[in-house]
Amino acid sequence: MKINVEKCAQILKEQDNILILAHAHPDGDTVGGSFALCLALKKLGKKARVICADEFLPKYLNLIDGSLACCEAFEEEFIVAVDVATENLLGDLAEQYSGRIDMCIDHHGTNTGYAKYLLLNADAAAACETVLKVIKALKVKIDKPMANALFIGISTDTGCFRYASTTSNTYRAAAELVDLGADNGTINRVMFESKTRTYAALERLAIEGMRFYDDDRICVIKITQDMYARTGSSEQETDAIAPLTRQIEGVEVGLTFREKPDGTCKCSIRTLDSVNAAELAAAFGGGGHKQAAACRFDCGVEDAEKMLVEKASEMLSV
Amino acid sequence: MKINVEKCAQILKEQDNILILAHAHPDGDTVGGSFALCLALKKLGKKARVICADEFLPKYLNLIDGSLACCEAFEEEFIVAVDVATENLLGDLAEQYSGRIDMCIDHHGTNTGYAKYLLLNADAAAACETVLKVIKALKVKIDKPMANALFIGISTDTGCFRYASTTSNTYRAAAELVDLGADNGTINRVMFESKTRTYAALERLAIEGMRFYDDDRICVIKITQDMYARTGSSEQETDAIAPLTRQIEGVEVGLTFREKPDGTCKCSIRTLDSVNAAELAAAFGGGGHKQAAACRFDCGVEDAEKMLVEKASEMLSV
Repeated sequence: MKINVEKCAQILKEQDNILILAHAHPDGDTVGGSFALCLALKKLGKKARVICADEFLPKYLNLIDGSLACCEAFEEEFIVAVDVATENLLGDLAEQYSGRIDMCIDHHGTNTGYAKYLLLNADAAAACETVLKVIKALKVKIDKPMANALFIGISTDTGCFRYASTTSNTYRAAAELVDLGADNGTINRVMFESKTRTYAALERLAIEGMRFYDDDRICVIKITQDMYARTGSSEQETDAIAPLTRQIEGVEVGLTFREKPDGTCKCSIRTLDSVNAAELAAAFGGGGHKQAAACRFDCGVEDAEKMLVEKASEMLSV
Repeated sequence: MKINVEKCAQILKEQDNILILAHAHPDGDTVGGSFALCLALKKLGKKARVICADEFLPKYLNLIDGSLACCEAFEEEFIVAVDVATENLLGDLAEQYSGRIDMCIDHHGTNTGYAKYLLLNADAAAACETVLKVIKALKVKIDKPMANALFIGISTDTGCFRYASTTSNTYRAAAELVDLGADNGTINRVMFESKTRTYAALERLAIEGMRFYDDDRICVIKITQDMYARTGSSEQETDAIAPLTRQIEGVEVGLTFREKPDGTCKCSIRTLDSVNAAELAAAFGGGGHKQAAACRFDCGVEDAEKMLVEKASEMLSV
């Protein structure tokens, strides 16, 4: 059932012992939205906590002050997913919680409507834009940790206000959060202007290995387990790699393959207007947005590359 | 004489045949602010044009529709400089216009007050934030070309809303300009997500040659004439290089040297809070902001590097 912001706030007010689910391989939007909502619910005297199949990166928790979201144990009575388009994106938590999710706050047009109540704004650049509205509708005073959490979500999901998904509402939400105490300078520096030595080394290898197809309209980056070993980097550090493909002049489809320890792989897709990334990903069981999507493969990088380049090439030729 | 926005608008209303000066090696803020002001003055029926010692990059003019700022010839009666902290930043135009500038609209705290009337807001992240206010005070309806021009200035001077100089007013100005028709997605992609093949090659060489000093707190990049020759790139494409230094974990001072054809050089300085970039630049006759500044040298890169690293090291040890 689709609901609006007011209804969402009204339902949350009536609940207690609320479990909040972030999606696996958590990004700033799911972390920021989940923690901000959790902090707001706790301000209302409720018990709430955030869980995720994968660990939260310290860079997020340090900026949000994640300790504030800790809570004595409770048995969950109401389950909310934030920024989770489909239940399988919950990763290892999917089996346990599938079919049991009461509410979802999301901005993915591809949301499957798995939750009992769905608050969806597909025009929002980040789920956090909508979580901000929900917290305001809950009449909770937004403090610095909440403002930081929401700012992280909005800033990271827009590539620091860069992507075409950024609207005037996004900039306005950012202005509001800065006035509420969000440390925008620090957050943006940590999220976008900081490279660890190991990441810088991995990025250099990735750029050196770039390959181009289809009159250079398709750019492929492959990140292998061997590259992690040589640089001391890890998959957790690879989020900033995918956008590099689309930055090169003439590239319309960027494919970034990441090899898993078991030899299978995942591909992050970045496109310009000429190809719908979500459609391309969907051809291989994945999903996402118009210009940014992802899919997984049971095969190795070389085979996956062949299939995906072929499909992308087909979509470019239409 | 320092003036406020209303006084600035009032003076401009009384003038005609207005020449607008952008600073040499023009960036998005001086180009965007100059053109937006020019377009606004023309809407008021005045004659106005923009000049600069160096050529405007096509990427700016294409997005602004620079042709709109063309104008039949006139003899200038009033001269306005936009985003120009000191007269010598006018480059080859400095000799001709020094001592003759009637008005300056700027956001550099280091502005020397050379103009008869100075509208200075040192808290603004971009001169364009203030130009936006001036155009509103002139009661000119802001159209898409003006909105694009102002958005370019704000977006580029903040590294796409990333730097600590970005305030809630900056985000609010961006929201307003998007509502007025600014193509934020396209502008940000062209300014921040597009690398020519030649630039990508130059960037790779620059990163390969990075050197570190002072327990890796100082990072140096050197761009030589030989590197331009090897990659087909040029100095016009190097603006995005300097920020790369400060992105590396642990780096507090980033120095990017660019060799000139005559063997002398220029250095772009990027810092974190521990060192004031403007002060460091000032030690060598340069200037700028707290975290971003620049200076020129009459010597070659190697000698300049030695002097600047020594001074930066001294400032870090305080």
